[in-house]
Amino acid sequence: MDTVKVLDHGSVSLVEVWGSEENIIRAARQSTDGSFRGWPGDEKLLSYLYRNGHMSPFEMAGAIFAIKAPIFVFREWHRHRTQSYNEMSARYVPIPDEHYIPTVDRFLRSGGSNKQAQGTGDAVLSPLTAAWAQKDIAAAYQAANNSYQYLLTLGVPKELARLVMPVGRYSKMWASANLRNWLQFLELREASGAQWEIQQYALAVHSLLRDHFPRTLALFEEKT
Amino acid sequence: MDTVKVLDHGSVSLVEVWGSEENIIRAARQSTDGSFRGWPGDEKLLSYLYRNGHMSPFEMAGAIFAIKAPIFVFREWHRHRTQSYNEMSARYVPIPDEHYIPTVDRFLRSGGSNKQAQGTGDAVLSPLTAAWAQKDIAAAYQAANNSYQYLLTLGVPKELARLVMPVGRYSKMWASANLRNWLQFLELREASGAQWEIQQYALAVHSLLRDHFPRTLALFEEKT
Amino acid sequence: MDTVKVLDHGSVSLVEVWGSEENIIRAARQSTDGSFRGWPGDEKLLSYLYRNGHMSPFEMAGAIFAIKAPIFVFREWHRHRTQSYNEMSARYVPIPDEHYIPTVDRFLRSGGSNKQAQGTGDAVLSPLTAAWAQKDIAAAYQAANNSYQYLLTLGVPKELARLVMPVGRYSKMWASANLRNWLQFLELREASGAQWEIQQYALAVHSLLRDHFPRTLALFEEKT
Amino acid sequence: MDTVKVLDHGSVSLVEVWGSEENIIRAARQSTDGSFRGWPGDEKLLSYLYRNGHMSPFEMAGAIFAIKAPIFVFREWHRHRTQSYNEMSARYVPIPDEHYIPTVDRFLRSGGSNKQAQGTGDAVLSPLTAAWAQKDIAAAYQAANNSYQYLLTLGVPKELARLVMPVGRYSKMWASANLRNWLQFLELREASGAQWEIQQYALAVHSLLRDHFPRTLALFEEKT
Repeated sequence: MDTVKVLDHGSVSLVEVWGSEENIIRAARQSTDGSFRGWPGDEKLLSYLYRNGHMSPFEMAGAIFAIKAPIFVFREWHRHRTQSYNEMSARYVPIPDEHYIPTVDRFLRSGGSNKQAQGTGDAVLSPLTAAWAQKDIAAAYQAANNSYQYLLTLGVPKELARLVMPVGRYSKMWASANLRNWLQFLELREASGAQWEIQQYALAVHSLLRDHFPRTLALFEEKT
Repeated sequence: MDTVKVLDHGSVSLVEVWGSEENIIRAARQSTDGSFRGWPGDEKLLSYLYRNGHMSPFEMAGAIFAIKAPIFVFREWHRHRTQSYNEMSARYVPIPDEHYIPTVDRFLRSGGSNKQAQGTGDAVLSPLTAAWAQKDIAAAYQAANNSYQYLLTLGVPKELARLVMPVGRYSKMWASANLRNWLQFLELREASGAQWEIQQYALAVHSLLRDHFPRTLALFEEKT
Repeated sequence: MDTVKVLDHGSVSLVEVWGSEENIIRAARQSTDGSFRGWPGDEKLLSYLYRNGHMSPFEMAGAIFAIKAPIFVFREWHRHRTQSYNEMSARYVPIPDEHYIPTVDRFLRSGGSNKQAQGTGDAVLSPLTAAWAQKDIAAAYQAANNSYQYLLTLGVPKELARLVMPVGRYSKMWASANLRNWLQFLELREASGAQWEIQQYALAVHSLLRDHFPRTLALFEEKT
Repeated sequence: MDTVKVLDHGSVSLVEVWGSEENIIRAARQSTDGSFRGWPGDEKLLSYLYRNGHMSPFEMAGAIFAIKAPIFVFREWHRHRTQSYNEMSARYVPIPDEHYIPTVDRFLRSGGSNKQAQGTGDAVLSPLTAAWAQKDIAAAYQAANNSYQYLLTLGVPKELARLVMPVGRYSKMWASANLRNWLQFLELREASGAQWEIQQYALAVHSLLRDHFPRTLALFEEKT
């Protein structure tokens, strides 16, 4: 399984691809009762479709990914309502003790161009403060996990013990969508306003899609 | 390409299948961080999922079909908003001169249990009347096609010449959906209230899906 | 009920509007736990949302329309899968004998910038030929209706008698969508590549929406 | 604004309703070119539609709610992909220090009929253990909030400080859906397999919908 590592413990793995760029051309040619004529000639049609927003043929291909990411990333991801999801459930299994700790570099980058998401002052974090922040986050994760384990020991049902789990904890899911919808996902989640963490997941999806739909992803890259 | 013939000139062909029943199990086991354990053991889980309406794992498989059907069948088909479509367009190509003429038997069956869709009287059509109806429909198709061809000859754009085309004329499309949505399509379109013609298309889709997802279709058949 | 007449026998009527531009602002301010502050001040936020593609707050308003249009227009309309539809059914009622006949002007306009949809030659239709085309279309409609009525008289069920009905025949439906999806509809169906007839329906929807969401439609107009 | 209190700090408030049961009848009668005839007569049609699964007319009405609930409830809620959402964002505002602490009774109820979600042993929690669990959860919330506030003080951007927030913390959102989709939500989330907390939210939505669509909700209650 092709896998791209993301963040400190995360990953995106390709479970399955369906369709092909040839399929996209064949689907588009349904409108004129035509068929696939061969590459590179049909690259012109593929590019015409993409550039003019005739996106329905791109629904005739797609991909399923297995993703491991922190809960706050999944919270943003699940707002994409055209994808299909199957996620690990803290109601049914104790979620592994793995959490996301941002690197010092990530703290210094501080929210990019998104003013609202930035720190409270003009001051940029110093490397020292970033290290403090890392330590505090790690300690908070540790404390939360202690509570979680203690609650399970008490006999508290998993679905209630999970209340104390932080949104920085890793979970896992499968996500499926057609190519048109994956491109829409990339457009929104690679954008500068998106949080840096989900951008990294979008880039991983991007690179795995590119292996199977190189012409389409080239058109996407040219546009953005 | 696996093809099932439907009505007098129609067909359903399998373009592509993705996922598998093994995939469905693997997707379902995401919730408990588990995996596929093997058939026939996992048939119990598949059947549990299906019978209790846990349908999201069935979104991790799907199929694309190429369909040739009369326009009035496509009109009903397109009400399924979870499928992806690419259809031949009468704006761009002259649609072939092929039309659906019901068999004498079909006239005698007359709308099945659906009272509103039946004939005006209690009287069942006689075979003789049915033969008359066939002849009238064929003549109407012929006349409409003559007009259509004449308009094209005059230089009328295809997108306007098509106005006279009857809804009994054949068109073609590709349709893609995940397995959950195909099952929903079958449930609505194999039902006794559905028009007999689209029932035949649903049965064709059904038999092609059964080749690839035999356990799931067996569960579907058991339920309906 | 506000109604806009479209084509020779068609119309778009407003059944109901929900939400408001104030609602859109309130929904958008959920993200910062804020509220509506008043016009014209909040026009800046509305315009920021629209121009930056933050469209989810525009899902908190919407409209239902009653539409009378030829079948070929509904065929294009129903490809919008985010709308809700309830249409008159030729399975249940004899559809009224009303058909769309393009004006002479419409024939002369011939498909606009869409090459594929145009006539077969370079020659533009002459007014005389256009008048011939009108006459031929009217005669085809008449012939089809004669067949349809005859089949009903024979006792053929409505769901089969309808096979001879041309796609130029008028039908009726209700269509409901939220404002974000109506804007998407307008964008695709007012575009130069769309067929002139559905453009007229999009313009009618546009003008009825503008009465209730003037600021949003102004932003839409500015963009397109 | 009609409001129902839920859990210790949560609520569901009606923002807006659109359509009506009269509208549903009018939409359904589109198929036969008919109209609303009046109550109580048309209750028979409403009940026919509902009981036979003709649900599209129920898309011609809907409601928007403002909801305050713990994050883990929103996580389940957002799996409903036919609703529109606008949620408070911890990227943009510091989320208020409010958390869900289950009552002692809730601990004793322990996951209802859902085996997988229950505690690890056969033992039912004692009231004393439940009180311990409450205390531990409260302490975990306190510790997490201390970390969160400290990180903000250090100048860590809100979008990173939030990593330590537990899923038991309250957030807020607006959710909009048509009546058909709300009924589907109720069916899944009032079911015995659903977690008790989201059941309470479903019951609140239920009671607010009943005020405006009493006949439809009576049909729903009769079925479930």
